[in-house]
Amino acid sequence: MKTVAVCLSGCGFLDGAEITESVLTLLALDEAGAKVVCCAPNVSQAGVVDHVSKKPVGEQRNVLIESARIARGEIVNVAAVRAEQIDALIFPGGFGAAKNLCTFASDGADCKVNADVERLVAAMLKARKPIGAICIAPAMLARIVGKMGVHAKLTIGTARDEASAINAMGGEHVECGVRDIVIDEQQRIVTTPAYMLGRGPAEVYEGIRKLVDAVLRMAAGPSTGSGAPGHEFEI
Amino acid sequence: MKTVAVCLSGCGFLDGAEITESVLTLLALDEAGAKVVCCAPNVSQAGVVDHVSKKPVGEQRNVLIESARIARGEIVNVAAVRAEQIDALIFPGGFGAAKNLCTFASDGADCKVNADVERLVAAMLKARKPIGAICIAPAMLARIVGKMGVHAKLTIGTARDEASAINAMGGEHVECGVRDIVIDEQQRIVTTPAYMLGRGPAEVYEGIRKLVDAVLRMAAGPSTGSGAPGHEFEI
Repeated sequence: MKTVAVCLSGCGFLDGAEITESVLTLLALDEAGAKVVCCAPNVSQAGVVDHVSKKPVGEQRNVLIESARIARGEIVNVAAVRAEQIDALIFPGGFGAAKNLCTFASDGADCKVNADVERLVAAMLKARKPIGAICIAPAMLARIVGKMGVHAKLTIGTARDEASAINAMGGEHVECGVRDIVIDEQQRIVTTPAYMLGRGPAEVYEGIRKLVDAVLRMAAGPSTGSGAPGHEFEI
Repeated sequence: MKTVAVCLSGCGFLDGAEITESVLTLLALDEAGAKVVCCAPNVSQAGVVDHVSKKPVGEQRNVLIESARIARGEIVNVAAVRAEQIDALIFPGGFGAAKNLCTFASDGADCKVNADVERLVAAMLKARKPIGAICIAPAMLARIVGKMGVHAKLTIGTARDEASAINAMGGEHVECGVRDIVIDEQQRIVTTPAYMLGRGPAEVYEGIRKLVDAVLRMAAGPSTGSGAPGHEFEI
Protein backbone atom coordinates (compact mmCIF):
# COMPACT_ATOMS: atom_id res chain seq x y z
CA MET A 1 0.00 0.00 0.00
CA LYS A 2 1.36 3.39 -1.00
CA THR A 3 1.21 6.40 1.34
CA VAL A 4 0.28 9.64 -0.38
CA ALA A 5 0.36 13.08 1.24
CA VAL A 6 -2.35 15.49 0.06
CA CYS A 7 -1.39 19.09 0.81
CA LEU A 8 -4.43 21.33 1.35
CA SER A 9 -4.50 25.13 1.50
CA GLY A 10 -7.73 25.98 3.34
CA CYS A 11 -11.36 25.19 2.54
CA GLY A 12 -13.09 26.99 -0.34
CA PHE A 13 -11.86 27.83 -3.84
CA LEU A 14 -11.68 31.63 -3.41
CA ASP A 15 -9.41 31.66 -0.33
CA GLY A 16 -8.40 28.05 0.24
CA ALA A 17 -8.28 24.61 -1.34
CA GLU A 18 -10.85 23.89 -4.06
CA ILE A 19 -13.17 21.59 -2.12
CA THR A 20 -14.36 19.40 -5.03
CA GLU A 21 -10.81 18.86 -6.31
CA SER A 22 -9.65 17.97 -2.78
CA VAL A 23 -12.46 15.49 -2.10
CA LEU A 24 -12.15 13.88 -5.55
CA THR A 25 -8.40 13.44 -5.00
CA LEU A 26 -9.16 11.68 -1.71
CA LEU A 27 -11.86 9.57 -3.43
CA ALA A 28 -9.54 8.48 -6.26
CA LEU A 29 -6.78 7.60 -3.77
CA ASP A 30 -9.20 5.61 -1.57
CA GLU A 31 -10.63 3.78 -4.58
CA ALA A 32 -7.07 2.88 -5.63
CA GLY A 33 -6.31 1.53 -2.14
CA ALA A 34 -3.74 4.16 -1.18
CA LYS A 35 -3.18 5.38 2.37
CA VAL A 36 -3.73 9.14 2.62
CA VAL A 37 -2.07 11.68 4.91
CA CYS A 38 -3.64 15.13 4.65
CA CYS A 39 -1.41 18.04 5.54
CA ALA A 40 -1.40 21.85 5.37
CA PRO A 41 0.74 24.71 6.61
CA ASN A 42 -0.10 26.03 10.09
CA VAL A 43 -0.30 29.69 8.99
CA SER A 44 -2.94 32.41 8.71
CA GLN A 45 -4.85 32.54 5.43
CA ALA A 46 -3.82 35.40 3.14
CA GLY A 47 -7.47 36.48 3.38
CA VAL A 48 -11.05 35.29 3.80
CA VAL A 49 -13.56 35.61 0.96
CA ASP A 50 -17.37 35.46 1.25
CA HIS A 51 -18.24 32.75 -1.30
CA VAL A 52 -21.71 34.25 -1.99
CA SER A 53 -20.70 37.87 -2.64
CA LYS A 54 -17.20 36.75 -3.77
CA LYS A 55 -15.77 39.74 -1.84
CA PRO A 56 -13.06 39.75 0.84
CA VAL A 57 -14.23 40.04 4.44
CA GLY A 58 -12.32 41.24 7.50
CA GLU A 59 -11.85 37.88 9.16
CA GLN A 60 -8.83 35.78 10.06
CA ARG A 61 -8.74 32.03 9.53
CA ASN A 62 -5.95 29.46 9.85
CA VAL A 63 -5.01 27.30 6.84
CA LEU A 64 -4.45 24.09 8.85
CA ILE A 65 -7.67 24.47 10.86
CA GLU A 66 -9.83 25.23 7.80
CA SER A 67 -8.18 22.42 5.79
CA ALA A 68 -9.15 20.06 8.63
CA ARG A 69 -12.80 20.52 7.56
CA ILE A 70 -12.05 18.69 4.31
CA ALA A 71 -9.89 16.08 6.07
CA ARG A 72 -12.51 15.37 8.79
CA GLY A 73 -9.93 16.41 11.41
CA GLU A 74 -7.30 13.88 10.24
CA ILE A 75 -4.53 16.29 9.25
CA VAL A 76 -0.94 17.15 10.15
CA ASN A 77 1.23 20.24 9.82
CA VAL A 78 3.11 20.03 6.49
CA ALA A 79 6.24 21.06 8.44
CA ALA A 80 6.14 17.60 10.05
CA VAL A 81 5.95 15.64 6.77
CA ARG A 82 9.23 14.20 5.47
CA ALA A 83 9.76 12.80 1.96
CA GLU A 84 11.06 9.53 3.44
CA GLN A 85 7.66 8.87 5.03
CA ILE A 86 5.59 9.14 1.86
CA ASP A 87 5.51 7.63 -1.63
CA ALA A 88 3.88 10.56 -3.41
CA LEU A 89 2.61 14.11 -2.83
CA ILE A 90 -0.47 15.74 -4.39
CA PHE A 91 -1.61 19.38 -4.34
CA PRO A 92 -5.28 20.11 -5.11
CA GLY A 93 -5.93 23.60 -6.49
CA GLY A 94 -8.07 26.57 -5.51
CA PHE A 95 -6.84 30.11 -4.86
CA GLY A 96 -5.43 28.80 -1.58
CA ALA A 97 -2.64 27.13 -3.58
CA ALA A 98 -1.78 30.56 -5.06
CA LYS A 99 -2.43 32.63 -1.91
CA ASN A 100 -1.58 30.44 1.10
CA LEU A 101 0.98 27.92 -0.22
CA CYS A 102 2.73 30.62 -2.24
CA THR A 103 2.14 34.24 -3.27
CA PHE A 104 1.51 33.56 -6.98
CA ALA A 105 -1.93 35.25 -6.89
CA SER A 106 -0.35 38.59 -5.96
CA ASP A 107 3.29 38.29 -7.10
CA GLY A 108 3.01 36.16 -10.26
CA ALA A 109 6.36 34.81 -11.50
CA ASP A 110 8.17 36.53 -8.59
CA CYS A 111 6.15 34.61 -6.01
CA LYS A 112 7.51 33.17 -2.76
CA VAL A 113 6.61 29.63 -1.72
CA ASN A 114 5.85 28.64 1.90
CA ALA A 115 9.20 27.37 3.25
CA ASP A 116 7.86 24.04 4.53
CA VAL A 117 6.03 23.31 1.27
CA GLU A 118 9.14 24.21 -0.75
CA ARG A 119 11.36 21.99 1.42
CA LEU A 120 8.99 19.01 1.00
CA VAL A 121 8.63 19.45 -2.78
CA ALA A 122 12.39 19.80 -3.22
CA ALA A 123 12.97 16.66 -1.15
CA MET A 124 10.43 14.72 -3.21
CA LEU A 125 12.08 15.83 -6.47
CA LYS A 126 15.53 14.84 -5.14
CA ALA A 127 14.18 11.46 -3.98
CA ARG A 128 12.54 11.02 -7.42
CA LYS A 129 9.13 10.45 -5.82
CA PRO A 130 6.10 11.52 -7.85
CA ILE A 131 4.22 14.79 -7.36
CA GLY A 132 0.73 15.60 -8.64
CA ALA A 133 -0.58 19.17 -8.93
CA ILE A 134 -4.12 20.19 -9.86
CA CYS A 135 -5.67 23.40 -11.25
CA ILE A 136 -3.46 26.42 -10.34
CA ALA A 137 -1.11 24.42 -8.04
CA PRO A 138 1.33 23.71 -10.94
CA ALA A 139 2.25 27.45 -10.89
CA MET A 140 3.71 26.94 -7.42
CA LEU A 141 5.61 23.86 -8.65
CA ALA A 142 7.01 25.90 -11.55
CA ARG A 143 8.49 28.38 -9.08
CA ILE A 144 10.18 25.60 -7.09
CA VAL A 145 11.57 23.65 -10.07
CA GLY A 146 12.67 26.92 -11.70
CA LYS A 147 14.70 27.91 -8.63
CA MET A 148 16.23 24.40 -8.56
CA GLY A 149 17.18 24.65 -12.24
CA VAL A 150 15.06 21.60 -13.03
CA HIS A 151 13.10 21.49 -16.30
CA ALA A 152 9.49 20.29 -15.98
CA LYS A 153 6.43 20.12 -18.24
CA LEU A 154 3.33 21.40 -16.50
CA THR A 155 -0.23 22.39 -17.34
CA ILE A 156 -2.82 24.75 -15.93
CA GLY A 157 -5.04 24.18 -18.99
CA THR A 158 -5.14 27.01 -21.51
CA ALA A 159 -5.03 30.26 -19.48
CA ARG A 160 -2.49 32.49 -21.25
CA ASP A 161 -1.31 34.70 -18.39
CA GLU A 162 -0.73 31.81 -16.03
CA ALA A 163 0.93 29.75 -18.80
CA SER A 164 3.31 32.65 -19.55
CA ALA A 165 4.14 32.96 -15.86
CA ILE A 166 4.90 29.22 -15.67
CA ASN A 167 7.31 29.58 -18.60
CA ALA A 168 8.83 32.72 -17.05
CA MET A 169 9.54 30.81 -13.82
CA GLY A 170 11.44 28.12 -15.76
CA GLY A 171 8.69 25.54 -16.32
CA GLU A 172 7.37 24.49 -19.72
CA HIS A 173 3.62 24.96 -20.06
CA VAL A 174 1.73 22.38 -22.12
CA GLU A 175 -1.93 22.94 -23.08
CA CYS A 176 -4.32 20.26 -21.80
CA GLY A 177 -8.06 19.59 -21.59
CA VAL A 178 -9.99 19.18 -18.35
CA ARG A 179 -10.40 15.42 -18.77
CA ASP A 180 -6.71 14.85 -19.38
CA ILE A 181 -3.30 15.10 -17.72
CA VAL A 182 0.25 16.17 -18.57
CA ILE A 183 2.94 13.77 -17.41
CA ASP A 184 6.59 14.71 -17.02
CA GLU A 185 8.09 11.23 -16.81
CA GLN A 186 11.57 12.68 -16.25
CA GLN A 187 10.69 14.68 -13.14
CA ARG A 188 7.76 12.44 -12.17
CA ILE A 189 5.32 15.34 -12.10
CA VAL A 190 1.67 14.93 -13.18
CA THR A 191 -0.70 17.89 -13.66
CA THR A 192 -4.35 18.41 -14.69
CA PRO A 193 -6.36 21.63 -15.23
CA ALA A 194 -9.51 20.67 -13.22
CA TYR A 195 -11.49 23.85 -12.44
CA MET A 196 -9.12 26.04 -14.48
CA LEU A 197 -11.33 24.68 -17.29
CA GLY A 198 -13.90 22.36 -15.71
CA ARG A 199 -17.63 23.04 -15.58
CA GLY A 200 -18.65 20.28 -13.20
CA PRO A 201 -17.40 17.53 -10.89
CA ALA A 202 -17.80 14.65 -13.40
CA GLU A 203 -15.31 15.97 -15.96
CA VAL A 204 -12.99 17.28 -13.24
CA TYR A 205 -12.99 13.80 -11.68
CA GLU A 206 -11.91 12.25 -14.98
CA GLY A 207 -8.72 14.35 -14.99
CA ILE A 208 -8.07 13.87 -11.28
CA ARG A 209 -8.56 10.09 -11.47
CA LYS A 210 -6.05 9.92 -14.32
CA LEU A 211 -3.62 12.06 -12.31
CA VAL A 212 -3.94 9.84 -9.23
CA ASP A 213 -3.52 6.67 -11.32
CA ALA A 214 -0.38 8.09 -13.02
CA VAL A 215 1.09 9.21 -9.68
CA LEU A 216 0.47 5.78 -8.12
CA ARG A 217 1.90 4.01 -11.19
CA MET A 218 5.07 6.10 -10.84
CA ALA A 219 5.20 5.46 -7.09
CA ALA A 220 4.98 1.69 -7.70
CA GLY A 221 7.22 1.39 -10.74
CA PRO A 222 10.91 1.71 -11.48
CA SER A 223 12.41 5.09 -12.31
CA THR A 224 12.03 5.96 -15.97
CA GLY A 225 13.86 9.27 -15.64
CA SER A 226 17.52 10.11 -16.00
CA GLY A 227 18.42 9.60 -12.36
CA ALA A 228 19.25 6.22 -10.87
CA PRO A 229 16.29 4.59 -9.19
CA GLY A 230 16.50 5.26 -5.47
CA HIS A 231 16.52 2.31 -3.10
CA GLU A 232 13.27 3.60 -1.63
CA PHE A 233 11.30 2.41 -4.67
CA GLU A 234 9.68 -0.97 -4.86
CA ILE A 235 10.45 -2.38 -8.31
CA MET B 1 -32.93 16.44 -17.62
CA LYS B 2 -34.05 16.36 -13.99
CA THR B 3 -33.45 19.28 -11.63
CA VAL B 4 -32.35 18.26 -8.16
CA ALA B 5 -31.97 20.61 -5.19
CA VAL B 6 -29.16 19.74 -2.77
CA CYS B 7 -29.73 21.37 0.62
CA LEU B 8 -26.47 22.10 2.44
CA SER B 9 -26.03 23.09 6.10
CA GLY B 10 -22.63 24.76 6.28
CA CYS B 11 -19.16 23.47 5.43
CA GLY B 12 -17.48 20.93 7.71
CA PHE B 13 -18.86 17.83 9.41
CA LEU B 14 -18.66 19.12 13.01
CA ASP B 15 -20.69 22.31 12.51
CA GLY B 16 -22.01 22.15 8.94
CA ALA B 17 -22.55 19.87 5.98
CA GLU B 18 -20.26 16.83 5.72
CA ILE B 19 -18.02 17.98 2.88
CA THR B 20 -17.24 14.58 1.34
CA GLU B 21 -20.92 13.53 1.36
CA SER B 22 -21.89 16.86 -0.23
CA VAL B 23 -19.28 16.70 -3.00
CA LEU B 24 -19.98 13.03 -3.74
CA THR B 25 -23.71 13.81 -4.02
CA LEU B 26 -22.88 16.54 -6.56
CA LEU B 27 -20.52 14.16 -8.39
CA ALA B 28 -23.13 11.39 -8.64
CA LEU B 29 -25.77 13.86 -9.85
CA ASP B 30 -23.40 15.32 -12.47
CA GLU B 31 -22.36 11.85 -13.65
CA ALA B 32 -26.05 10.97 -14.04
CA GLY B 33 -26.68 14.13 -16.10
CA ALA B 34 -28.92 15.88 -13.58
CA LYS B 35 -29.10 19.64 -13.17
CA VAL B 36 -28.20 20.68 -9.62
CA VAL B 37 -29.43 23.62 -7.56
CA CYS B 38 -27.58 24.00 -4.28
CA CYS B 39 -29.46 25.73 -1.49
CA ALA B 40 -29.13 26.40 2.24
CA PRO B 41 -30.92 28.45 4.90
CA ASN B 42 -29.70 32.03 5.32
CA VAL B 43 -29.24 31.76 9.10
CA SER B 44 -26.39 31.87 11.61
CA GLN B 45 -24.73 28.54 12.35
CA ALA B 46 -25.65 27.04 15.74
CA GLY B 47 -21.92 27.19 16.45
CA VAL B 48 -18.44 26.99 14.95
CA VAL B 49 -16.11 24.07 15.73
CA ASP B 50 -12.33 23.98 15.25
CA HIS B 51 -11.89 20.81 13.15
CA VAL B 52 -8.35 20.17 14.50
CA SER B 53 -9.08 20.43 18.25
CA LYS B 54 -12.74 19.42 17.67
CA LYS B 55 -13.73 22.08 20.24
CA PRO B 56 -16.25 24.94 19.82
CA VAL B 57 -14.78 28.38 19.19
CA GLY B 58 -16.33 31.80 19.79
CA GLU B 59 -17.01 32.70 16.17
CA GLN B 60 -20.14 33.39 14.16
CA ARG B 61 -20.61 32.03 10.64
CA ASN B 62 -23.60 32.03 8.27
CA VAL B 63 -24.94 28.72 6.95
CA LEU B 64 -25.64 29.99 3.40
CA ILE B 65 -22.25 31.74 3.08
CA GLU B 66 -20.27 28.73 4.36
CA SER B 67 -22.31 26.29 2.23
CA ALA B 68 -21.37 28.44 -0.79
CA ARG B 69 -17.78 27.17 -0.36
CA ILE B 70 -18.92 23.67 -1.34
CA ALA B 71 -21.18 25.00 -4.12
CA ARG B 72 -18.44 27.25 -5.62
CA GLY B 73 -20.72 30.26 -5.04
CA GLU B 74 -23.66 28.81 -7.03
CA ILE B 75 -26.24 28.65 -4.26
CA VAL B 76 -29.67 30.04 -3.38
CA ASN B 77 -31.56 30.60 -0.14
CA VAL B 78 -33.69 27.51 0.56
CA ALA B 79 -36.57 29.92 1.32
CA ALA B 80 -36.67 30.70 -2.42
CA VAL B 81 -36.90 27.06 -3.58
CA ARG B 82 -40.38 25.78 -4.44
CA ALA B 83 -41.30 22.12 -4.94
CA GLU B 84 -42.79 22.94 -8.37
CA GLN B 85 -39.34 24.01 -9.62
CA ILE B 86 -37.50 20.80 -8.77
CA ASP B 87 -37.82 17.07 -9.44
CA ALA B 88 -36.07 15.85 -6.30
CA LEU B 89 -34.43 17.08 -3.08
CA ILE B 90 -31.34 15.65 -1.36
CA PHE B 91 -29.87 16.41 2.08
CA PRO B 92 -26.21 15.48 2.69
CA GLY B 93 -25.34 14.85 6.35
CA GLY B 94 -22.87 16.28 8.85
CA PHE B 95 -23.73 17.81 12.21
CA GLY B 96 -25.01 20.85 10.29
CA ALA B 97 -28.08 18.79 9.35
CA ALA B 98 -28.72 18.19 13.06
CA LYS B 99 -27.65 21.65 14.32
CA ASN B 100 -28.49 24.16 11.57
CA LEU B 101 -31.35 22.56 9.59
CA CYS B 102 -32.99 21.35 12.81
CA THR B 103 -32.17 21.11 16.51
CA PHE B 104 -31.87 17.30 16.67
CA ALA B 105 -28.28 17.45 18.04
CA SER B 106 -29.48 19.26 21.18
CA ASP B 107 -33.21 18.42 21.42
CA GLY B 108 -33.37 14.84 20.05
CA ALA B 109 -36.90 13.65 19.28
CA ASP B 110 -38.33 17.03 20.41
CA CYS B 111 -36.31 18.92 17.80
CA LYS B 112 -37.56 21.89 15.77
CA VAL B 113 -36.90 22.00 12.01
CA ASN B 114 -35.97 25.22 10.15
CA ALA B 115 -39.31 26.56 8.86
CA ASP B 116 -38.19 26.92 5.23
CA VAL B 117 -36.69 23.43 5.14
CA GLU B 118 -39.84 21.95 6.72
CA ARG B 119 -42.08 23.78 4.21
CA LEU B 120 -40.03 22.48 1.24
CA VAL B 121 -39.90 18.88 2.52
CA ALA B 122 -43.65 18.88 3.23
CA ALA B 123 -44.37 20.26 -0.26
CA MET B 124 -42.16 17.57 -1.86
CA LEU B 125 -43.95 14.82 0.09
CA LYS B 126 -47.36 16.21 -0.92
CA ALA B 127 -46.26 16.45 -4.56
CA ARG B 128 -44.91 12.86 -4.32
CA LYS B 129 -41.47 13.97 -5.49
CA PRO B 130 -38.50 11.96 -4.18
CA ILE B 131 -36.30 12.99 -1.27
CA GLY B 132 -32.85 11.61 -0.43
CA ALA B 133 -31.25 11.99 2.99
CA ILE B 134 -27.71 11.00 3.95
CA CYS B 135 -25.96 10.22 7.27
CA ILE B 136 -27.83 11.99 10.15
CA ALA B 137 -30.16 14.00 7.85
CA PRO B 138 -32.88 11.25 8.01
CA ALA B 139 -33.43 12.22 11.68
CA MET B 140 -34.68 15.61 10.50
CA LEU B 141 -36.94 13.91 7.94
CA ALA B 142 -38.36 11.67 10.68
CA ARG B 143 -39.41 14.75 12.64
CA ILE B 144 -41.22 16.22 9.60
CA VAL B 145 -42.98 13.03 8.49
CA GLY B 146 -43.89 12.28 12.11
CA LYS B 147 -45.60 15.69 12.51
CA MET B 148 -47.43 15.11 9.20
CA GLY B 149 -48.63 11.69 10.35
CA VAL B 150 -46.85 10.03 7.42
CA HIS B 151 -45.16 6.66 7.95
CA ALA B 152 -41.68 6.35 6.43
CA LYS B 153 -38.81 3.84 6.56
CA LEU B 154 -35.48 5.53 7.18
CA THR B 155 -31.91 4.61 8.09
CA ILE B 156 -29.03 6.26 9.88
CA GLY B 157 -27.09 2.97 9.86
CA THR B 158 -26.89 1.14 13.17
CA ALA B 159 -26.56 3.85 15.88
CA ARG B 160 -29.01 2.86 18.63
CA ASP B 161 -29.80 6.23 20.20
CA GLU B 162 -30.47 7.94 16.88
CA ALA B 163 -32.50 4.94 15.65
CA SER B 164 -34.64 5.07 18.80
CA ALA B 165 -35.17 8.81 18.31
CA ILE B 166 -36.26 8.21 14.71
CA ASN B 167 -38.83 5.69 15.89
CA ALA B 168 -39.96 8.02 18.70
CA MET B 169 -40.59 10.79 16.16
CA GLY B 170 -42.86 8.51 14.13
CA GLY B 171 -40.42 7.14 11.56
CA GLU B 172 -39.43 3.48 11.22
CA HIS B 173 -35.71 2.91 11.49
CA VAL B 174 -34.21 0.15 9.32
CA GLU B 175 -30.59 -1.01 9.82
CA CYS B 176 -28.39 -0.57 6.76
CA GLY B 177 -24.71 -0.87 5.78
CA VAL B 178 -22.58 2.00 4.50
CA ARG B 179 -22.55 0.72 0.91
CA ASP B 180 -26.32 0.34 0.78
CA ILE B 181 -29.57 2.31 0.88
CA VAL B 182 -33.06 2.06 2.38
CA ILE B 183 -35.88 2.89 -0.03
CA ASP B 184 -39.39 3.82 1.05
CA GLU B 185 -41.19 3.41 -2.28
CA GLN B 186 -44.47 4.60 -0.74
CA GLN B 187 -43.17 7.98 0.43
CA ARG B 188 -40.39 8.15 -2.19
CA ILE B 189 -37.68 8.61 0.43
CA VAL B 190 -34.17 7.14 0.03
CA THR B 191 -31.58 7.13 2.84
CA THR B 192 -27.99 5.89 3.31
CA PRO B 193 -25.74 5.91 6.43
CA ALA B 194 -22.56 7.34 4.81
CA TYR B 195 -20.23 8.63 7.57
CA MET B 196 -22.55 7.38 10.33
CA LEU B 197 -20.68 4.14 9.49
CA GLY B 198 -18.22 4.90 6.70
CA ARG B 199 -14.46 4.83 7.06
CA GLY B 200 -13.51 6.44 3.75
CA PRO B 201 -14.86 8.17 0.65
CA ALA B 202 -14.89 5.07 -1.60
CA GLU B 203 -17.42 3.10 0.45
CA VAL B 204 -19.41 6.25 1.26
CA TYR B 205 -19.62 6.99 -2.47
CA GLU B 206 -21.08 3.54 -3.15
CA GLY B 207 -24.05 4.29 -0.88
CA ILE B 208 -24.47 7.84 -2.15
CA ARG B 209 -24.34 6.77 -5.80
CA LYS B 210 -27.07 4.19 -5.13
CA LEU B 211 -29.14 6.85 -3.34
CA VAL B 212 -28.79 9.31 -6.23
CA ASP B 213 -29.65 6.61 -8.79
CA ALA B 214 -32.76 5.57 -6.81
CA VAL B 215 -33.88 9.20 -6.37
CA LEU B 216 -33.47 9.89 -10.12
CA ARG B 217 -35.29 6.65 -11.02
CA MET B 218 -38.21 7.75 -8.85
CA ALA B 219 -38.14 11.27 -10.31
CA ALA B 220 -38.30 9.82 -13.83
CA GLY B 221 -40.80 7.04 -13.30
CA PRO B 222 -44.49 6.75 -12.51
CA SER B 223 -45.68 6.78 -8.94
CA THR B 224 -45.46 3.35 -7.31
CA GLY B 225 -47.01 4.52 -4.05
CA SER B 226 -50.61 4.69 -2.94
CA GLY B 227 -51.29 8.19 -4.24
CA ALA B 228 -52.34 8.93 -7.81
CA PRO B 229 -49.38 9.85 -10.02
CA GLY B 230 -49.16 13.63 -10.16
CA HIS B 231 -49.27 15.32 -13.55
CA GLU B 232 -45.81 16.74 -12.83
CA PHE B 233 -44.20 13.34 -13.43
CA GLU B 234 -42.96 12.19 -16.79
CA ILE B 235 -44.27 8.66 -17.31
